[in-house]
Amino acid sequence: MKIIIWTSLFQAVVSFSVPKTSVPRSSSALFAEANGSAAPKKILVLGGDGFCGWPTSLYLSDQGHDVVVVDNLSRRNIDLELGCDSLTPIQPMEVRCQAWKEVTGKDIRFVNLDVAKEYDLLVQLIEKEKPDSIVHFAEQRAAPYSMKTSKTKRYTVDNNVGGSNNLCCAVIDSGVDAHIVHLGTMGVYGYGTSGGEIPEGYIDVILPGGRESNILHPAYPGSVYHATKCLDALLWQFYNKNDQLRVTDLHQGIVWGTNTPQTALDERLINRFDYDGDYGTVLNRFLMQGAMGVPLTVYGTGGQTRAFIHISDTARCIELAINNPPKPGDRVEIFNQVAETRRVRDIANLVAKLTGVEVNYIPNPRQEADENELDVSNKKFCNLGLDPITLDTGLFDEVTEVVKKYKSRCNPQKILPASFWNKKRAEACADLDPKSVKLAEEKTEAAAP
Amino acid sequence: MKIIIWTSLFQAVVSFSVPKTSVPRSSSALFAEANGSAAPKKILVLGGDGFCGWPTSLYLSDQGHDVVVVDNLSRRNIDLELGCDSLTPIQPMEVRCQAWKEVTGKDIRFVNLDVAKEYDLLVQLIEKEKPDSIVHFAEQRAAPYSMKTSKTKRYTVDNNVGGSNNLCCAVIDSGVDAHIVHLGTMGVYGYGTSGGEIPEGYIDVILPGGRESNILHPAYPGSVYHATKCLDALLWQFYNKNDQLRVTDLHQGIVWGTNTPQTALDERLINRFDYDGDYGTVLNRFLMQGAMGVPLTVYGTGGQTRAFIHISDTARCIELAINNPPKPGDRVEIFNQVAETRRVRDIANLVAKLTGVEVNYIPNPRQEADENELDVSNKKFCNLGLDPITLDTGLFDEVTEVVKKYKSRCNPQKILPASFWNKKRAEACADLDPKSVKLAEEKTEAAAP
Repeated sequence: MKIIIWTSLFQAVVSFSVPKTSVPRSSSALFAEANGSAAPKKILVLGGDGFCGWPTSLYLSDQGHDVVVVDNLSRRNIDLELGCDSLTPIQPMEVRCQAWKEVTGKDIRFVNLDVAKEYDLLVQLIEKEKPDSIVHFAEQRAAPYSMKTSKTKRYTVDNNVGGSNNLCCAVIDSGVDAHIVHLGTMGVYGYGTSGGEIPEGYIDVILPGGRESNILHPAYPGSVYHATKCLDALLWQFYNKNDQLRVTDLHQGIVWGTNTPQTALDERLINRFDYDGDYGTVLNRFLMQGAMGVPLTVYGTGGQTRAFIHISDTARCIELAINNPPKPGDRVEIFNQVAETRRVRDIANLVAKLTGVEVNYIPNPRQEADENELDVSNKKFCNLGLDPITLDTGLFDEVTEVVKKYKSRCNPQKILPASFWNKKRAEACADLDPKSVKLAEEKTEAAAP
Repeated sequence: MKIIIWTSLFQAVVSFSVPKTSVPRSSSALFAEANGSAAPKKILVLGGDGFCGWPTSLYLSDQGHDVVVVDNLSRRNIDLELGCDSLTPIQPMEVRCQAWKEVTGKDIRFVNLDVAKEYDLLVQLIEKEKPDSIVHFAEQRAAPYSMKTSKTKRYTVDNNVGGSNNLCCAVIDSGVDAHIVHLGTMGVYGYGTSGGEIPEGYIDVILPGGRESNILHPAYPGSVYHATKCLDALLWQFYNKNDQLRVTDLHQGIVWGTNTPQTALDERLINRFDYDGDYGTVLNRFLMQGAMGVPLTVYGTGGQTRAFIHISDTARCIELAINNPPKPGDRVEIFNQVAETRRVRDIANLVAKLTGVEVNYIPNPRQEADENELDVSNKKFCNLGLDPITLDTGLFDEVTEVVKKYKSRCNPQKILPASFWNKKRAEACADLDPKSVKLAEEKTEAAAP
């Protein structure tokens, strides 16, 4: 296994918990330095109420951009459906925007709109706002949820692919030359298929007949969710070719961390934190289990190697993408939005060592290889000045403090996997060891006020 | 340009017009010969009311299979929307099925169901019928229509991708191990990108790091319609990997011809014939214009090379695919369902020479290369015994007779292109020479009783 390690100069910036007073924010001097001569832009953030969308919206606003959040609150609705909730007490969008205004004096507007269903309103919004950039987070983003039932599979395809297609059509219909910045996933490349460092989006091949070509990296998705990002990639390719849409596709790793300097400014700005089997990302789930003092649940052998990125870097990368759009006529720009790759059991052992909890290997609910290598290039973002935050146990404190503060809100029943990739995997998981749940229930009760 | 030419022993079989009496049909001896020991199967034909779906359904029934046609009549509804109609007077499905019963004694059942929208009914149908095979034609199939407006772009994506995803989910939910036979398109490969003979679905590449791999041929669709077939291909790949669905994807060329031995048995069984700018396929449009005595409208330089297949071979290929399903655990089987490739202007010149009409080059409504080469392998079907019908002017008589018989039903206004790939192409086509239309109107009037 190859592991990419970078030194991180940025780490100090995000070493914080959730204070009620301000933390130092990026000054305009820092803004100018990071962005060269880039002028503030008008930006629509589709899906700006979500785990990545909200801190990104705040970050962009903080950097001086004019941000309009567009969201249909689907993530909150899915919480209701699953009987889950963010561990952190996230506030309604109206409260969030008001708090941001109070704390910073900056406006973020909110439009409740379903990108996949309310096409005419989307066109009208783009015509009215004439955004320079449209950041597209408005997709169902959990692989497990996408594999839960035929209903969630179908919702994920219809919502994600339909929404992306609507966005392309709406930009064309509006006549506004907006740059689309889309959140893809490292999973489009497949895990363990490449055999070498995965380049950013395209590979050189020799086609039948001997012609050299540079093509989209072969797609080998491992879930319906990941498949939708592959389908999106073909739509971007087509509309870019046919209508010269300017598109940047960001193939992101697994996001960890909770808050950013902006969401930490006021408790009403707090970011959502998911710990459940469907939406909780792996490192955050481990940190949650560690803070609760219950065994970490590792799927299979934990031999899966995955790419990771901290939530603060998600926001930074998106601004770098916005400030470096493809030129008119350029093909789709693709970045690998990752800081590093790690093997899941190594992360589990790291968290276990820090917290003193044990590691509990449970049957894997996912149809995937037991073990895989993953080596990923992220040169493009590094060349644009990103010095990514890497896994550092010092940063775990931020998540740990959040978890400890809100653990009375935890429903331990929700930690274990609740979605199974196929019948075989469901059968293998029928007797999931409930030790983690039982222990978590005891700990939660003991911690209750 | 390379042109693949095969000798055709089958041509005599389809040299017929639309008689009211029977033509020789495949005997059970022929059936046994063509299919080895293949037993009759239960087959659902999704989209079985369409141009390819209907003759395929009749052919499969004629070969002794138990056929259930599933269709929401969307193609007829689009006719209403476009103010067009099949040149041939196609009958309602109830009449078609009744006529088939009368003429052959065989049953074809019809279920009116929207595959993309009525998921629960689809699952119930599969559970009830327990088909061996499901032939999936239930997609919007015209590239021009898919590029007409944002509404038709969105409909094409939602209907085609949503429908294919529904089909996968429904097969999984039903627990029926049905073999899916899907109609794809040669256009998934892109036109002129390969530089050599396009193999059947997969190419060998060397991935970054030096690992050899055999991947889906790179997708390079030229319209939203073609894009949906590329998206489908990724869904087949995913569900095959995750759930071991058995899928055959048929990348078909442009279909020409009207009737087959089965549709010719009775006028109530007649196949649809589209001559309009959206749904009329290129050779059929030329034959129509030739029979009307009006100039052939060739887009651009006519330098586009395309793959072709006769409607009778469509049906034959589908039965070959049904009778040769992938083994459990096999990856998606892909066939190139084509007989030969030809350059559009060569076809125009052939038809012009036969009919004495002139060739009229008009601006191209499509965003595509002016000229391209296309060389396609079709070894797999040939190895299964297909001896494809190639373009033969003798066979043009069948179409010509149909056109002459029904030309009073033609609306000449509908012949010219009515969909434009982007703003630039629409502007270039603003002054389309209406010569063909005017002449056709005169001819139609003169021909009126």
